[in-house]
Order: sequence, then C-alpha cells, then structure tokens
Amino acid sequence: MKVLVINAGSSSLKYQLYNMTDESVLAKGLVERIGMDSSILTHKPAGREDVTEVSEILEHTTAIRKVIDMLTDKENGVLGSVDEIQAVGHRVVHGGEAFKESALVDDVAKAEIRRLFDLAPLHNPAAMMGIRAAELNMPGVPQVMVFDTAFHQTMPEKAYLYAIPRVLYKKYKVRRYGAHGTSHDYVSKAAAEYLDRPLQDLKIITCHVGNGGSVTAVKGGLSVDTSMGMTPLEGLMMGTRSGDLDPAIVPYVMNKEELSVSEVNSMLNKHSGLLAISGISSDMREITEGMENGDANSTLAFEMYEYRLRKYIGSYAAAMNGVDVIVFTAGVGENSVVLRQKVCEQLTYLGVELDEALNAIRSGEPRRITTSNSKVDVLVVPTNEELVIARDTHRIVLNSQ
Amino acid sequence: MKVLVINAGSSSLKYQLYNMTDESVLAKGLVERIGMDSSILTHKPAGREDVTEVSEILEHTTAIRKVIDMLTDKENGVLGSVDEIQAVGHRVVHGGEAFKESALVDDVAKAEIRRLFDLAPLHNPAAMMGIRAAELNMPGVPQVMVFDTAFHQTMPEKAYLYAIPRVLYKKYKVRRYGAHGTSHDYVSKAAAEYLDRPLQDLKIITCHVGNGGSVTAVKGGLSVDTSMGMTPLEGLMMGTRSGDLDPAIVPYVMNKEELSVSEVNSMLNKHSGLLAISGISSDMREITEGMENGDANSTLAFEMYEYRLRKYIGSYAAAMNGVDVIVFTAGVGENSVVLRQKVCEQLTYLGVELDEALNAIRSGEPRRITTSNSKVDVLVVPTNEELVIARDTHRIVLNSQ
Repeated sequence: MKVLVINAGSSSLKYQLYNMTDESVLAKGLVERIGMDSSILTHKPAGREDVTEVSEILEHTTAIRKVIDMLTDKENGVLGSVDEIQAVGHRVVHGGEAFKESALVDDVAKAEIRRLFDLAPLHNPAAMMGIRAAELNMPGVPQVMVFDTAFHQTMPEKAYLYAIPRVLYKKYKVRRYGAHGTSHDYVSKAAAEYLDRPLQDLKIITCHVGNGGSVTAVKGGLSVDTSMGMTPLEGLMMGTRSGDLDPAIVPYVMNKEELSVSEVNSMLNKHSGLLAISGISSDMREITEGMENGDANSTLAFEMYEYRLRKYIGSYAAAMNGVDVIVFTAGVGENSVVLRQKVCEQLTYLGVELDEALNAIRSGEPRRITTSNSKVDVLVVPTNEELVIARDTHRIVLNSQ
Repeated sequence: MKVLVINAGSSSLKYQLYNMTDESVLAKGLVERIGMDSSILTHKPAGREDVTEVSEILEHTTAIRKVIDMLTDKENGVLGSVDEIQAVGHRVVHGGEAFKESALVDDVAKAEIRRLFDLAPLHNPAAMMGIRAAELNMPGVPQVMVFDTAFHQTMPEKAYLYAIPRVLYKKYKVRRYGAHGTSHDYVSKAAAEYLDRPLQDLKIITCHVGNGGSVTAVKGGLSVDTSMGMTPLEGLMMGTRSGDLDPAIVPYVMNKEELSVSEVNSMLNKHSGLLAISGISSDMREITEGMENGDANSTLAFEMYEYRLRKYIGSYAAAMNGVDVIVFTAGVGENSVVLRQKVCEQLTYLGVELDEALNAIRSGEPRRITTSNSKVDVLVVPTNEELVIARDTHRIVLNSQ
C-alpha cells in the first residue's frame, strides 16, 4: 500500500509518500507560503535531485493538487497515476478526549475535530483544511487522522487534571492533553527494541526537544505524564515559548502592559523562551555558538533550558518511582552533544554514567550514550513522526476493509 | 532582651513575646476580625489559662494597644510595663530583591516596602499597618522586618528568571521570589543539627506543606530553588490555590467566563486547590477523612496533592544532583502520617526506606522517619517561624547598638 502523509499548517503543507511494503519513502516535500503570491513547492524524490517550483497557491486544495501533479510528473514524479495513493494520513494536533487513538476520517470525526478548534485554534483548522483538500483531490481514498494527543490519553486523572474549579473541566474540557504523542510513542518503542527489553517492564523518560519540546513519562509503554498541558505552552522552555510560569504573572502583565488575551498569548508563545533570554535567536545551534563565544545571555538561555529539562527528568523519575531509560530525540535532542552532556553530568545521583565518546558520535540510528556500568540507559533515538502516521494509516485502512 | 513578634494580616494580628535569654515564649495570642464590630483577642500567657476578650477594634494601632494592655495586665499579663519590650520583629511577606536579609525599620526601608506593595498587594500593606501601629504604641523601640522571601535571594539566575521577555524583569521585577523563607531556613538548619552533620555538606529538600505550601532545594545551607514564584500561586497544589498550571489556561478562562484580572486571581488563589477538587474542604484533615470514608473526590484531591509534592521532590533532587535529607514541616507536613507515607513509598528509587512505626509517632520534636539503612534521611521538623523572627530581631538590634 502507498500512503501519503500530510502535515498541514495554516500556510504550509508537508508531505511524505510511503511504500508500506518496505516502509520506504518514495518522495517528500513541502509547500510554503500558501495564500501568498509566490508560493514555493520543494519536492524531494528519493535518490534524485530536489525540484523547486514557484507559483501562486492560494489555498490548501490547490497545494495538494500541485503535490499530486508533482508526484505523478513524468520527469520528477514517483507514481504512474494518482490512483496508486491508497490512503492518506493526516497529522492532527489536538484530538481532545474523543480520540484515544488514530481514526478514519468520516463525518462524525470531522464534526468532532471542529468542536476541538477552540482548544487548538492555530492547528486544528489547518489540519481540517488539509483533510478537505485531500478529499477533494482524491475522492474515495480512505483518510486517517493521527493525533499528537492520542498517546497521552492513558494519563491518570491525577496527572491530567488541574487543581482548579472542576466546572472548567466539565464545561470547557480544561485539562492536560500533551503533544508530540506520535514521537514519544515511537521513540519509547524504538528504545525498548534497541535495548532488546520488553517495553512493559520499562520506565522510560522521553525528551522530545526541538523548537517546541516536551518530556513524557512512559511506564510499561503508556504515557503516564507529560510536560505540555492543555496547550503547547506549558512545560519546558522552548525556542519562543516560555514554558512553566507562575500563572499569576499572566494577569499581572496583562494589567501592567494593557495586553489583550491574544497579545499575552502571542508574547508567551512567540516572543519568549530561548529567544527572549538570549536576545539573539530561538535556535539552539545559535545559542550554543553564542555560549561558546562567551555571550552571557546565550549562556544563561542555555543554562535555563538545560536546567528546566533536567528538573522534568527528575520529576518524572519521582512520578514513576525510578527510571530505566532516558531518550533524547528531535532537533535539539538528537543533535546537541553539549545539552545531553550537561543534563547527564547532573544525573549521576540516578546512576547515569555518560560515555563522552559515545555522546559525541553523530548518526541517524538509535544509540546508547552511557557506559555499560550506567544504571540508567541514556539513548539518542531519531524520531520519525511521519512513519508513525504512515503505519497507523496503513493499519487502520487495512482493518477497515 | 524581650522581643515582641508581630505577624499582621489585613484583618488579623498574631503576636508572640519572647524572652531571648532562654528563647522562652512568655505569651502569645491573636487578634481576629479587626475592622469588624466584634473583634476577638485571644491571649495565651505561658503556663496559665487562655483569656478571650471581645471588643470593637477598628484598626491595627488599637489592636496593638489592646495587646500591650493585655501583656501588662495585672491579672493576665506577663510584663510589669511596656518598656520591657526592647525590640519588635515583624513578619513581612515580600522583600523583593532589595532585602536579602532581615533589616531594621527606618524611613528608607519603609519606602522600599511601599514600592513592593505592587508585588504583594494582599500582604505587604498589612505588614506596613503592623509596623506603623507598633511605632505609634512603642515609640523609640527598635523594629526589625523579617522577610518570607529573603532566604531565597541566594537562588541563581537560572532558577529565578522566567523565560519571558526580559523587559518584564527590568520594568516590573517579574521573577521568582519564593516564600516561607524563614521556615525553610529554620528547618534546614534544624535538620543538620538533628543529624549532627555540617549544613554546608548537605543537599536538603524542605517541604513546607500547610494550607499554603512550598518546597525548597537547600544546598550547603542556601536556597537554590523554590516552588513558589513571583507570587504564592505557583508550585504545589494547596488548600485553595491551584499551584502549577498551563499559563495559557489563564487567558483562556478569562475569555470564556468573561473574568477580570482580579476575578481570575481570586479563582486561582481562593477557589482552587484541594477545595476545588474535593468539593468539600481546603483542609487536609477533612480530605483525609473523606478519603478514609471512600469519597472519590477527596481521594483524587489527596492523590493530586501527594503526586505534585512528590514530583517537586524529584525535580529538586535533579536540580542538586542528589538529595541527602528530605524534611516535612508545617501543618500538613508535621501531622499527616499518610501523606508522608505515600510520598516516601514512591521514592524508593532514591534509596528512601520509610520506617512506618517511626512515621506514626506524633511529637513536637524533630525526628527521623526512615530506617537506619535509608540512603536519604527523611525527617519531620516542626517549624517555628516566630522564633526565627525573634532571633533575627534580637541579633540585628544587638548589632545596631
């Protein structure tokens, strides 16, 4: 089965075409600047040269049509006809409480996603545009939604409820949902496989740290707690997000600076985090460079980022009464040697013993970075959210036929 | 030297008179319902019967005059004359960044406290009323302010800064200040003394859990991190406070429920926490009773409270790369056998080994509740914030003479 994976943003659309026979990627690409006058389609067929095309793409339906044209293009394509696409998998950020696992797209599911617009106003409408666009371009092809939140639906009440009036949960479903679920799911399973140990016996802490970031406590394969909350704002310090904050600061600052609800949200989501502290960049590579050049603000930004990540690891070790495996993944987790080093150096109380040589190796494969004496295995596991979406889509479509 | 310790709230005033020769308490008491028609003065002279007096007390100056009258009363008093009071020590909640330790009251200090009204609008004005009232009633007697925040002024930048635009720190001093500093200071010193180990060698986590609550990481005798933030809202779940929360929930709920800044503050500070989840009470004794009677909401409230406290302990173990001593103190920490038990049972990964018999003992003295094999000493240390205030006042007044 060939599966097209789509990750639609408000003005962008990423795609990846899988051949599920061997889980190989036939092509992938990205449409940027949708709705603007010069949209860019970058197409990467496997083993061949990238192709870039600039044109006017005003909305997602046109974007997907352009993607299909490219996938079936005589010269740059990888398909003889659009009919070879037998299923489409969509990344959907927020599945609320309704979706505890990936689901086939139908009218009921679409209505439910619309109800969740309120909880993910930036992300879910974009996903819905992607779904509609795929339906219009590929009528009759089964579509599957894979949710960032679904993996975390196993959290117990004590982890997902906030200590606020319960009417807010009843009326508005205010609770912890978490995010990056496909990634936490994927890397925890991959870690158990790499270690050749049964997942159900393991206490794993997965650190998905990229531009956004979250940490999850995975016990016996199930998410039991995660650092992102009702929205992706809570938890770790991120590229431009504040992460944890005294909640009283929000009304205080709104009052002082005369900010509206959307202005304070914008400040905390887009103008905070590494960017606010370093004053330079939201990108950990530039922060690290600044730190190496002796820039005090970059050093502080790095230290805060590392310290807060480490505290979450400690917190989840206490949540599970121990930890067997710590996994680093995503942009920063997979690539920042110095971040992993600084975190591990301060976790010797857990029996973590870093192997600096192993930590310095760069590779696209799962790998251990601790010594054989280390009581906790610390791994780097490259994440692959698209593959999880493709697998779920494949499985669900097969089961529904 | 005889020192009068005063803890002034907006409508209440607690007092305690110390003889610093032997640190004995000569009398203590409480004025309640200040500003209402029938105020109540409860006076407890050491070793004698309590006295209760109901009268109209409209403001703090009258309250302190009534206290002095009682302290010098022929029948119920403990002093021949008011002149025997040689110093007055005041509890002040917020000392901002200006006060890194206790300080003599003078015009400069008072101006500074007024500048901090903004950061502690409920507490600092009350403390200032207490100071003015004491000055009017005991002119010429040296007065000292002891701050809840001062002990935490040793926190490093990475622990006290939030990852938000730095202009908010520069303009409004938005940062972590913490609270219960006199208690965390007192019990960490008392723990080292009890264990007969040098404070500078110890990593201590102090859990001050009462109706309010905070956890502090104390390394070498210095606070390096604490769970309360710019305000007392952040951190642990408390009697009526939410503690940690996705900051995005604040504007979300304000928008949905059309709440003003002061309404949302009131909701999070007065109608959340144990009270909101249990639907019964903000008092851990009633929650525990509810749990023992099989009430599901009380059980959930207890579990959330315990879980969040345990996660902070884990977090601070990671912050300090280990922990030697965990201290429970304040109302809940000193009295809830079941809370301590549930926390310790899930900290065996740190080498905590609870002794259930020791944990069940009730006593007013510092005591160990772990076995001799336990890698971490867990102690119960009754706190004594008034004694810290009296000692600081005594020392500072002696040094100033």
